[in-house]
Amino acid sequence: MNAQVNIKTRNGLDLIQMGQTIEALKNDPGLAQFEFRASNEWVDGGENRSTIRGFYGAGAEDESRDKDFVFTNGEPPVLLGNNEGANPVEFLLHALAGCVTTTTVLHAAARGITIRKLSTRLSGNINLEGLLALNDEAVVGYESIRILMDIEADCSDEELDDLLSFARDHSPVCNTVCRPVPVTLERV
Amino acid sequence: MNAQVNIKTRNGLDLIQMGQTIEALKNDPGLAQFEFRASNEWVDGGENRSTIRGFYGAGAEDESRDKDFVFTNGEPPVLLGNNEGANPVEFLLHALAGCVTTTTVLHAAARGITIRKLSTRLSGNINLEGLLALNDEAVVGYESIRILMDIEADCSDEELDDLLSFARDHSPVCNTVCRPVPVTLERV
Repeated sequence: MNAQVNIKTRNGLDLIQMGQTIEALKNDPGLAQFEFRASNEWVDGGENRSTIRGFYGAGAEDESRDKDFVFTNGEPPVLLGNNEGANPVEFLLHALAGCVTTTTVLHAAARGITIRKLSTRLSGNINLEGLLALNDEAVVGYESIRILMDIEADCSDEELDDLLSFARDHSPVCNTVCRPVPVTLERV
Repeated sequence: MNAQVNIKTRNGLDLIQMGQTIEALKNDPGLAQFEFRASNEWVDGGENRSTIRGFYGAGAEDESRDKDFVFTNGEPPVLLGNNEGANPVEFLLHALAGCVTTTTVLHAAARGITIRKLSTRLSGNINLEGLLALNDEAVVGYESIRILMDIEADCSDEELDDLLSFARDHSPVCNTVCRPVPVTLERV
């Protein structure tokens, strides 16, 4: 008897549901089209608040969340705020960390790799002359972002390096940052 | 007597501190170099948690925060999770909403425009065939992101349109998404 037969989850992911999802998408690629959303309201100064709940995906409007997620952006005093929340460029690092982590965990599960622990540290450099329009040569936004990952798993270092390279290439947030993604801003 | 003399804040921003910050950066552009950071730890499946606190900027390590900001990424059931938190691609929309809002508010203050209200709705499309590596032609990450802004201010529509265009071009998160930004992932 194969010991693998009784394994129903790996890295906290339900392998049966994962297989069913992938089969469903192969049969009907339209199910892979998702639309995610956020609403945000300015409070004052550098403080504003987002509400996140619904999204469209897998061919239907999602109804699984019984309450809103609410997050507050703020700014530190040196950027004219009162630390009402982390600031937007820090939330971007949180999004990137989470996406690279989940993509790694997902593709590890698909490859039969069990992860024991995984943590990341991210840092990114910004020249605020860009935001403030003080210097036309200054890059606006992050110049680059560095992710250091500490990972332990039941595979070789070579398999880990291949997994990480694959995760970087398939992480939605990482690719939204690495690639140029069009953003439109319209007044309503 | 000019009525403007007594105006110390606009849009919740301290105009005197804002002027001093800009003067300081003009005199010493090195002060504009910031490094933002996040640490993240995988919990299980699609759940992971970021800690945000310190950053470097204005020539010093920031010490203004007396506690960590902590945020949880999760996934909805259709993406193999239990809604432990918003998911990473949704947090990216929160970051983008906040940054475009704060950049608008900041440059409005600099232009003498008082904003009465400002809210945004964001949506972005993702083809999950990219994440799942089911289709080499599928774009990984957001294909595009749309921001609809509802803004009321004491200026003309033309001035608002010019302000929004300027904010879009000078928002750090918006430009991290619009431009290709290098992301490195290293194992430690």
